Amino acid sequence: MELVGVDLEERSYEIKIGAGLLANLGQSLIDLDIKAGTKILIITDKRVNDLYGSEINQRLEETDFEFKIIVVPEGEKSKSLNMTKVLYDEAVDFGLDRSSLIIAFGGGVIGDLAGFIAATYMRGVPFIQIPTTLLAQVDSSVGGKTAVNHEAGKNLIGAFYQPELVLIDLEVLNTLDQRDVRSGLAEVIKYGVIWDKEFFNYLQANHKEIKELDLDVLAKVIQRSCQIKAEVVAKDEKELGLRAILNYGHTIGHAIEALAGYGEYRHGEAVAIGMISAMELAYKLDMVTKEEVEAQTELINNFGLPTTINKLRLDQIISKTKQDKKVKDGEVNFILPNSIGEVEIVSGVKNEVLTEVLAKQLR
Amino acid sequence: MELVGVDLEERSYEIKIGAGLLANLGQSLIDLDIKAGTKILIITDKRVNDLYGSEINQRLEETDFEFKIIVVPEGEKSKSLNMTKVLYDEAVDFGLDRSSLIIAFGGGVIGDLAGFIAATYMRGVPFIQIPTTLLAQVDSSVGGKTAVNHEAGKNLIGAFYQPELVLIDLEVLNTLDQRDVRSGLAEVIKYGVIWDKEFFNYLQANHKEIKELDLDVLAKVIQRSCQIKAEVVAKDEKELGLRAILNYGHTIGHAIEALAGYGEYRHGEAVAIGMISAMELAYKLDMVTKEEVEAQTELINNFGLPTTINKLRLDQIISKTKQDKKVKDGEVNFILPNSIGEVEIVSGVKNEVLTEVLAKQLR
Ligand SMILES: NC(=O)c1ccc[n+]([C@@H]2O[C@H](COP(=O)([O-])OP(=O)(O)OC[C@H]3O[C@@H](n4cnc5c(N)ncnc54)[C@H](O)[C@@H]3O)[C@@H](O)[C@H]2O)c1
Ligand SMILES: NC(=O)c1ccc[n+]([C@@H]2O[C@H](COP(=O)([O-])OP(=O)(O)OC[C@H]3O[C@@H](n4cnc5c(N)ncnc54)[C@H](O)[C@@H]3O)[C@@H](O)[C@H]2O)c1
Ligand SMILES: [Zn+2]
Ligand SMILES: [Zn+2]
Repeated sequence: MELVGVDLEERSYEIKIGAGLLANLGQSLIDLDIKAGTKILIITDKRVNDLYGSEINQRLEETDFEFKIIVVPEGEKSKSLNMTKVLYDEAVDFGLDRSSLIIAFGGGVIGDLAGFIAATYMRGVPFIQIPTTLLAQVDSSVGGKTAVNHEAGKNLIGAFYQPELVLIDLEVLNTLDQRDVRSGLAEVIKYGVIWDKEFFNYLQANHKEIKELDLDVLAKVIQRSCQIKAEVVAKDEKELGLRAILNYGHTIGHAIEALAGYGEYRHGEAVAIGMISAMELAYKLDMVTKEEVEAQTELINNFGLPTTINKLRLDQIISKTKQDKKVKDGEVNFILPNSIGEVEIVSGVKNEVLTEVLAKQLR
Repeated sequence: MELVGVDLEERSYEIKIGAGLLANLGQSLIDLDIKAGTKILIITDKRVNDLYGSEINQRLEETDFEFKIIVVPEGEKSKSLNMTKVLYDEAVDFGLDRSSLIIAFGGGVIGDLAGFIAATYMRGVPFIQIPTTLLAQVDSSVGGKTAVNHEAGKNLIGAFYQPELVLIDLEVLNTLDQRDVRSGLAEVIKYGVIWDKEFFNYLQANHKEIKELDLDVLAKVIQRSCQIKAEVVAKDEKELGLRAILNYGHTIGHAIEALAGYGEYRHGEAVAIGMISAMELAYKLDMVTKEEVEAQTELINNFGLPTTINKLRLDQIISKTKQDKKVKDGEVNFILPNSIGEVEIVSGVKNEVLTEVLAKQLR
């Protein structure tokens, strides 16, 4: 088992990474000093429950905790204010209180939704993330961002709220759709580009093993991804500055995701396209070499992720980019590489340059 | 003008107290480094808006900020999930973003509601409290508790979220109902009993001036109340321990409020009754003297607050007390005085003792 610490003073916690960790769920709870008799509300989605609900059930039956599993429909639609109402009611029914525990058991949708409930039920209930998609394991379960969507924007309602533990079982990835695996890999590439050239090279050298979900390589990849995210979050928990670099590839990515309709692109697919745009912008601004542009494109290709934009219009993408909630005072900030392994925040990118770059990606 | 600091590391802020501060609202915003052009969403209720809306409007017209005033119906009913939905929509419509500002302008209902919106819109927007009831000025606007109600319980959905500034204008108290003034005074008495015997004596010595809203005495009373709350909150922001002492009188108080139906008793009236119960419990447990019991009863009487319980049944009150959300692991904790000026948390108070005490208060 690998351990990664997230260092946030009194809100610090550990990420446990390993194959088969779910089997020891009871022990992990005891290690956290969760007392016998504690009420545990597990929030999961239909698909994850069909696959792993009985295992969770069995593991918790073996313990002295009182638990209840709530299953919501799978997909982004469950990240809604309406669903929070349903979950608050369920929590009340179950008699959840501040000394209880909430477990998010699923992908990023469940993590964000259950995390928001944990953040706001009785002003905060302890909670644990058990991420079951690669994207959730390397990204959304770490760092304390929780949210639901609003018609006007994704993640518009939310809170910063840290879990007590993140428990990553590599084995659950075996049932994941290929597209969801790839989606997670986009975020992994992101960590290499923004923070760690050596890691980027490791991904390139091991891309076959990674795609085949080789457990040893995967453990290393997830661990390093979590480390990088944890390091950035520790320095800027509330996204006042540095944390913005985690949005590398996301400015264009979010615009594409929103325009195509959520669900059309997986999040990571849109991010991959956005990373291509960002690297190209950096190239136009003389920040990176042609070789660096090509290295990133090659890795994105090797992971089977898209690089071009289908069916969207250029002016739509540009105007959507300017509505991003990270836009401060009307100015779009781009996270652009200085080299592979380092990014900076660049403001005032000219419309012409952006247009030229995006035009090349349009199909 | 009096200043009280709330010391919470990077979340620290100031409380400004004085007569006529509203007239300088623009300057207060500039002092906070709010930039020209910033969008400001003011949330208030019907009554406060009728009384002070035009003044706020005028003060903000004089500035370079872009603002919008949203008026919700007055009363506890507005502290609902449904109302949060309305306010999120208004915020989106207005184009509020993370660099904007929310101002809560009203009593505790508005502070709690607007604070919750500020805590959860885009994972947190800066906000300012301008409390206009005495209760809000001495209690709810300070300390970062925000919340809305759920059918199953008051303040069941909420967050800890600190304002950037609390601006207390004493003059607005002149339009407050007598009952609302008294309600705030119950919390003031509470601070004396839990923390500061000298302050308790000052209240006793000046009870006439206080009831007449003498500005000099009032400034002192509000300042000391805020100081005490700030001190307790600074030591225990998230209510893991010490902060519970602010619930002196509230265990029974909340039960009575809920049973009678919110609105029947003002919050402070219920708390006054609860403080009588708590002091009496402390007396039965040999923690305080007969003189101390009488001193508190006298002050509560002098402020015109109730001491007895009407129209409720004993068994109802006791069972409701046990449902309080502060109950951990089924055990009711009481905050009881050791003397006037000091309290401790006492668990395992016997049912018989509680019954005996409450029976004496029932009418
Ligand atoms: N909080 C953050 O920091 C953060 C960061 C990135 C993304 N996100 C959010 O994460 C969400 C996307 O996450 P996601 O991609 O995990 O989506 P998801 O949770 O919808 O999971 C994708 C699909 O995989 C299924 N699934 C989950 N685990 C499985 C398993 N082990 N085997 C088989 N199927 C499984 C789910 O049922 C779902 O159908 C978005 O809402 C995004 O906003 C949040
Ligand atoms: N967050 C906390 O720490 C905390 C602490 C204590 C109480 N509270 C909450 O505070 C709420 C009660 O606060 P409240 O008593 O201020 O109630 P409130 O906000 O409903 O105000 C009481 C009434 O006074 C009116 N009013 C407000 N200012 C006025 C003024 N200057 N002149 C004339 N009328 C005015 C309001 O319109 C309302 O009708 C409850 O919801 C309670 O849960 C929160
Ligand atoms: Zn992402
Ligand atoms: Zn109170």
